[in-house]
Amino acid sequence: MNERINFSVPLLGERKVVSPIKMSTILGDLIANYVGDDEFILYDVEARPLELRQTYRKEELLEKAGPREMIYFKPEEVHAGIVTCGGLCPGLNDVIRAIVNCLWYRYGVKNITGIRYGYKGFLKEYDFPVISLNSEMVENIHKESGTILGSSRGGGDRTEEIVDAIERLGLNILFTIGGDGTQKGAIAIAEEVERRGKDIAIVGVPKTIDNDLSFVQKSFGFETAVSRAVEAVYSAHSEAKGAINGVGIVKVMGRESGFIAAHTALATGDTNFVLIPEIPFDLYGRNGLFRHLRKRLETRHHAVILVAEGAGQDLLKAEREKDESGNIRFGDIGLYLKTETEKYFENEKMEVTIKYIDPSYMIRSIPASPGDSIYCARLGTNAVHAAMAGRTKTLISLVNNTFVHLPMEMAVSRRNRVDPEGPLWRDVLEATGQPVIMKNGR
Amino acid sequence: MNERINFSVPLLGERKVVSPIKMSTILGDLIANYVGDDEFILYDVEARPLELRQTYRKEELLEKAGPREMIYFKPEEVHAGIVTCGGLCPGLNDVIRAIVNCLWYRYGVKNITGIRYGYKGFLKEYDFPVISLNSEMVENIHKESGTILGSSRGGGDRTEEIVDAIERLGLNILFTIGGDGTQKGAIAIAEEVERRGKDIAIVGVPKTIDNDLSFVQKSFGFETAVSRAVEAVYSAHSEAKGAINGVGIVKVMGRESGFIAAHTALATGDTNFVLIPEIPFDLYGRNGLFRHLRKRLETRHHAVILVAEGAGQDLLKAEREKDESGNIRFGDIGLYLKTETEKYFENEKMEVTIKYIDPSYMIRSIPASPGDSIYCARLGTNAVHAAMAGRTKTLISLVNNTFVHLPMEMAVSRRNRVDPEGPLWRDVLEATGQPVIMKNGR
Amino acid sequence: MNERINFSVPLLGERKVVSPIKMSTILGDLIANYVGDDEFILYDVEARPLELRQTYRKEELLEKAGPREMIYFKPEEVHAGIVTCGGLCPGLNDVIRAIVNCLWYRYGVKNITGIRYGYKGFLKEYDFPVISLNSEMVENIHKESGTILGSSRGGGDRTEEIVDAIERLGLNILFTIGGDGTQKGAIAIAEEVERRGKDIAIVGVPKTIDNDLSFVQKSFGFETAVSRAVEAVYSAHSEAKGAINGVGIVKVMGRESGFIAAHTALATGDTNFVLIPEIPFDLYGRNGLFRHLRKRLETRHHAVILVAEGAGQDLLKAEREKDESGNIRFGDIGLYLKTETEKYFENEKMEVTIKYIDPSYMIRSIPASPGDSIYCARLGTNAVHAAMAGRTKTLISLVNNTFVHLPMEMAVSRRNRVDPEGPLWRDVLEATGQPVIMKNGR
Amino acid sequence: MNERINFSVPLLGERKVVSPIKMSTILGDLIANYVGDDEFILYDVEARPLELRQTYRKEELLEKAGPREMIYFKPEEVHAGIVTCGGLCPGLNDVIRAIVNCLWYRYGVKNITGIRYGYKGFLKEYDFPVISLNSEMVENIHKESGTILGSSRGGGDRTEEIVDAIERLGLNILFTIGGDGTQKGAIAIAEEVERRGKDIAIVGVPKTIDNDLSFVQKSFGFETAVSRAVEAVYSAHSEAKGAINGVGIVKVMGRESGFIAAHTALATGDTNFVLIPEIPFDLYGRNGLFRHLRKRLETRHHAVILVAEGAGQDLLKAEREKDESGNIRFGDIGLYLKTETEKYFENEKMEVTIKYIDPSYMIRSIPASPGDSIYCARLGTNAVHAAMAGRTKTLISLVNNTFVHLPMEMAVSRRNRVDPEGPLWRDVLEATGQPVIMKNGR
Repeated sequence: MNERINFSVPLLGERKVVSPIKMSTILGDLIANYVGDDEFILYDVEARPLELRQTYRKEELLEKAGPREMIYFKPEEVHAGIVTCGGLCPGLNDVIRAIVNCLWYRYGVKNITGIRYGYKGFLKEYDFPVISLNSEMVENIHKESGTILGSSRGGGDRTEEIVDAIERLGLNILFTIGGDGTQKGAIAIAEEVERRGKDIAIVGVPKTIDNDLSFVQKSFGFETAVSRAVEAVYSAHSEAKGAINGVGIVKVMGRESGFIAAHTALATGDTNFVLIPEIPFDLYGRNGLFRHLRKRLETRHHAVILVAEGAGQDLLKAEREKDESGNIRFGDIGLYLKTETEKYFENEKMEVTIKYIDPSYMIRSIPASPGDSIYCARLGTNAVHAAMAGRTKTLISLVNNTFVHLPMEMAVSRRNRVDPEGPLWRDVLEATGQPVIMKNGR
Repeated sequence: MNERINFSVPLLGERKVVSPIKMSTILGDLIANYVGDDEFILYDVEARPLELRQTYRKEELLEKAGPREMIYFKPEEVHAGIVTCGGLCPGLNDVIRAIVNCLWYRYGVKNITGIRYGYKGFLKEYDFPVISLNSEMVENIHKESGTILGSSRGGGDRTEEIVDAIERLGLNILFTIGGDGTQKGAIAIAEEVERRGKDIAIVGVPKTIDNDLSFVQKSFGFETAVSRAVEAVYSAHSEAKGAINGVGIVKVMGRESGFIAAHTALATGDTNFVLIPEIPFDLYGRNGLFRHLRKRLETRHHAVILVAEGAGQDLLKAEREKDESGNIRFGDIGLYLKTETEKYFENEKMEVTIKYIDPSYMIRSIPASPGDSIYCARLGTNAVHAAMAGRTKTLISLVNNTFVHLPMEMAVSRRNRVDPEGPLWRDVLEATGQPVIMKNGR
Repeated sequence: MNERINFSVPLLGERKVVSPIKMSTILGDLIANYVGDDEFILYDVEARPLELRQTYRKEELLEKAGPREMIYFKPEEVHAGIVTCGGLCPGLNDVIRAIVNCLWYRYGVKNITGIRYGYKGFLKEYDFPVISLNSEMVENIHKESGTILGSSRGGGDRTEEIVDAIERLGLNILFTIGGDGTQKGAIAIAEEVERRGKDIAIVGVPKTIDNDLSFVQKSFGFETAVSRAVEAVYSAHSEAKGAINGVGIVKVMGRESGFIAAHTALATGDTNFVLIPEIPFDLYGRNGLFRHLRKRLETRHHAVILVAEGAGQDLLKAEREKDESGNIRFGDIGLYLKTETEKYFENEKMEVTIKYIDPSYMIRSIPASPGDSIYCARLGTNAVHAAMAGRTKTLISLVNNTFVHLPMEMAVSRRNRVDPEGPLWRDVLEATGQPVIMKNGR
Repeated sequence: MNERINFSVPLLGERKVVSPIKMSTILGDLIANYVGDDEFILYDVEARPLELRQTYRKEELLEKAGPREMIYFKPEEVHAGIVTCGGLCPGLNDVIRAIVNCLWYRYGVKNITGIRYGYKGFLKEYDFPVISLNSEMVENIHKESGTILGSSRGGGDRTEEIVDAIERLGLNILFTIGGDGTQKGAIAIAEEVERRGKDIAIVGVPKTIDNDLSFVQKSFGFETAVSRAVEAVYSAHSEAKGAINGVGIVKVMGRESGFIAAHTALATGDTNFVLIPEIPFDLYGRNGLFRHLRKRLETRHHAVILVAEGAGQDLLKAEREKDESGNIRFGDIGLYLKTETEKYFENEKMEVTIKYIDPSYMIRSIPASPGDSIYCARLGTNAVHAAMAGRTKTLISLVNNTFVHLPMEMAVSRRNRVDPEGPLWRDVLEATGQPVIMKNGR
């Protein structure tokens, strides 16, 4: 295991308050149990027989999430804030709903404030009014897409102003729902809070539709996104099959990682080429995409290409360098691919019909699938338990099918990527039948 | 860990054939890797700090699934059979498709036979013709529900006749897709095969829409089933809200375990009472369901009850014993609950409107969701790798997010159930707000 | 054309108020036009060449619905009530939303009251509080199934009490959304109102998921219901195909008419036998259903039967008469059919697998399809225009693709039924391939 | 009624063959009836009281579609061809399926040929092999999007080559499924066929996803297209609501007419501005879109704009004329609108967040909704009846809810458009609340 792994999560202080949630500490009485402070799980499950395992150091284990018998905050003194940041993602409203409901019904916290439009909602210049939240307001929001709070990018680096606002509002718990940048902002906020000697818990729910956060088994909204991307591929497939040498090109999200593309390809069975950021490829040349595409068209007369938005960035860069005028012609791999494919087959004097689909907003702005709804409900609930128990700088994560506390620092320290040599990509190669490498000289 | 755990999987014999699948054994070359024979994972991830771990015995580790560099069967000599048994489940066609495609395209196996209507398809008296399968036939079957092979219950105990048929057909690989009973049948078949000294691999893909197989992280089709059950609850909720003291009762599958009910409740947020086989309850009395239901109606004027088909079997039994005539009046907890609820409120002279929904066949006879499609594609592919590598009496399972080989004996040795004291049920209680126990004297 | 046709709609009195809606009376200015009082359409489009048409009498023409330049009520004096009656139907909330929005935004009426739980909401004994409605409250209700007002059956015959309540509330417009019974109640209310010399407009929106209202081209919710019934047939078809001699039986709504069954059969292409109330059939005998079913199973090995709930009532009646004990054994054609089918094949010693699906509540308790949403939006809007213009005892209907005013008396005077000799049923026979008549002696 | 209306449909010759379809000519025997040659309907239903109607001339009446007792072709001598042309549209496979099934099962025609990739499939240079069609091949194709035959644009003007191919194949019936251009091609084919003295029926099924064919009540696939466009608007609405002054722009199909846009706006209730080709608008200026948009953002903070692809072509043209370089910068109203909106608010120094969605291929490449499936099934069936009865140069159309024969010449003579002063657009204005005209000087 990596030397730098440290899964310890900070605690605001000693827990002296008896939880208002009535559970049991007795096994076998059919009554749900509190989570004990000695309940952890292993992160790494890889093992070889006869391998010796030393004693587990605490910092390499992940603490289980869930309700504690003794908590840190007195419910009647809690004023909780919720903020959603970054791009839309299916399930945001489910998480908000779960947080509000768990605070309201389980802990009896009635003072809950929604911050509008991300971190910018804390900034004076915007002057957005906050929203007072209660259980009735959130009753049906999980059936709607988007976020009832609104969201925005940026603003997270203006830490002092944000903490000023937190103090002004009188929040002692803040739930930050967002991605990498959001949680980096949350760390800075937590540190500023600490510097000021304030007793404020910062608990995050990690959000990334690309599924590329580390130490998080899957990110919420990802399953929903794949479901919808599958429909785009089905459409592309119909277009391709219905036309003379039809080529359907679908661009999906995935700036740094190709998880959506890989899963969509596996789900459809109609994809012939998947291009992801993790694996370089050439368009032209003996082993380039176009030669393989041409071969496919000659034998099967149609093809579907699925490209993650972050794929082939080296090609775009080369293109920009070639372009003396300094005008950026291609910022988008999807459109670039479409244009180059047209050009290639024109040169080859082969009639093809190319259809390009970019379904991005129709993927992220939809209500969560039932599976994601469940996941979000549980993430939100566990975030409340963590905060009430005094955890801070902590994210709620799912690892080995167990909800755990993850220190924010660990989550933002590296990015999750598709392993080109691992089983997921191997299964994609088997499902598409595409060449292992489409790179000349390989 | 349990003493009787033994995850070792049988192997037909030495692997002497070079796999026709071209992969790499070098890390870092961006080429997908074969799975080595020394790659295992831990089953149990629970851990406590400073706990000492002894060396891992091989039989307590799970072998990773996936393609091997050296395999057992010569592809050109393989004749593979596929059989689907038991009730319909979303994803059956996806599994069939993945098996056929992996055999056809990856290993070059062209001799693939589909057995009709489950184990009965092997029996002479039925005389069902088998189907010769190829990649073209399965191209679009994953978009359809059901199974193209047909299925049936029973017949799996007529081991000798089945093995006679296997020999007659000349199969040397058999894929058994089915639940508990099916895999017990498969074990018997494998043992008879061994007794006869035949070289036939029996590899299973576990199927149970109830998600109650042990050592399987989730069963395929379960996610899809929950998605559809969610719609039934939404309908019940609308019916309940739209009527005077409306009570919507939805019965879902789950003979031995309440996983579908529990997940559906978490996904909807509209369920008020969940009744599962794992937790006993009373209808009448001070702490019975009806008293709590009445209270809910008095304050909120509508309620949704979600009941797993295996819940409250003690109540049905008592009812049957009371019934002197010997006629079984209630075989069905859903209808019983409906009738008793009507009776209760009639006695109480309270006007209620009860709507009962039993969506069972509309849940299991639908195409797989994209998430289940992915899962099935990977299960099927890994089943082929296992069989080609000479594994037998082996199931493909997902454990800690890793595809593994699981000995059939382990899978059928116990059943997975909702832990009334664990985190899933705890989150259900939080989502529904229902009493922890609805049993008098508690 | 029928002698008793009279499409004249009553008017409360002279229109002296200028509509607050700004439209045009000039053709060609690209500004939407008011509807003139001389705009009518023909009901009957059947014609033969050289046929002489007399001058049109006004009462045989249907008045176009839509906004008038001069209206009857002063918007600031209007207090409108809305009531939804009978069983749930997709689109109820869409109609409510359209009525509220058109009143609120177009006419500036801010005094809108929702009556709870149908006509019972007017009765003192229930004491349900009314709901004050505004545009904000209805913003998203069309995305939810059911009715936000609640509904109930009955109570519509207590005319005097209802009119007392209407007076007590001070309503001068009442929108009645419901079926046959509801509109009969509305007629009685309108007559009592007239008797009391009150100036109250009663305008209805006809609702019947069975599509069996006369002089209404299609009823709202019907398209949605068919969409969902189609899914039930697909499930039944999968079950049937996946089993040994599988027979899927689906029961759909349709007490008096088989429109849902007929359309569902046309949409699926997977239905083999459709049984509707309009066409008698035998089960047994030379030309009975079972003989044809048996033949189908012998050649194709699976079959799907779609039965409307009102079909075969003569069979049920005969069954009841046979049953000396006086116990009603079969109130339900679906269960009866299932039981008899089992019995028949048991006698015939033929192994069959029967799956019975009754999806009724999952059909009617779902949100409206986009097509139905559009229809409901337009029905509701036109209902407001009619009421504001002083029409009463009037329904909004669609005839020959034109929204029209229909006198309530005409709508309740007869029922729409599938014509066994007409084109719809002819196309069903062609799609299913079922015998024209399954009746012995024919 | 228009002077130039002529609804007479050509007939190849006298009908001397007894139909193999067994129906009845007796009313009241519960047996479906043949359609008589004297059954017509009125096209125009507008009427005013006391208006005198002269005798109906035959050419102003529409002949009812359906099976005739006497037909023209001997089924055993028929060789039918099917061709699908132009862009994909939901329901193409449903129409193909209905044609094949009606020929196969009802008339016993077993000689059916599918032409690949539109009219180009007739051309020698492409050398596409034709497909021999039978009922088994089309069993499940209605569940898939696209067309199993493939389609293409153009080629329809090469009449002689096409008729050469028709003769070479030996077709005596050709079904042409396509839009305006396709049916113009079909007219030319029919005329060439006549010139050559051949006995070949050319019968069309009109296809236009834009719903802009005249004398056709609704075009197939339109309902499905609207359903999916609705999802795009919901996504745009979520994006807009979730962002700081969010503006969602959705472009939908509709080159000449705004039907998809208008219906989508009515279905969603979330659209604030609809721009269609029929109604000119300005972007800038006192009464331009942007001023109204700004007002909307100031009060409600988000907005959704729905634009048909053919809207604002005058603006694009002006833009192109301004651009001295001769480079066409904007061929697309959606992207132009997006760019100009950004520019406008940048100038106004108002922070807005613009999201642009173009869902076109995801709209047209999906399976037909149940409503469209029904419609397509009936169109296809009636096309077969028309052809077998010897009709030629004839389209199947739905008028006043009746399936009729429509001469191809009439259908292509004019285009259907949204009437800015009619009830559809009036209801859109009421639903969106947008200004009647957004044009300066109005």
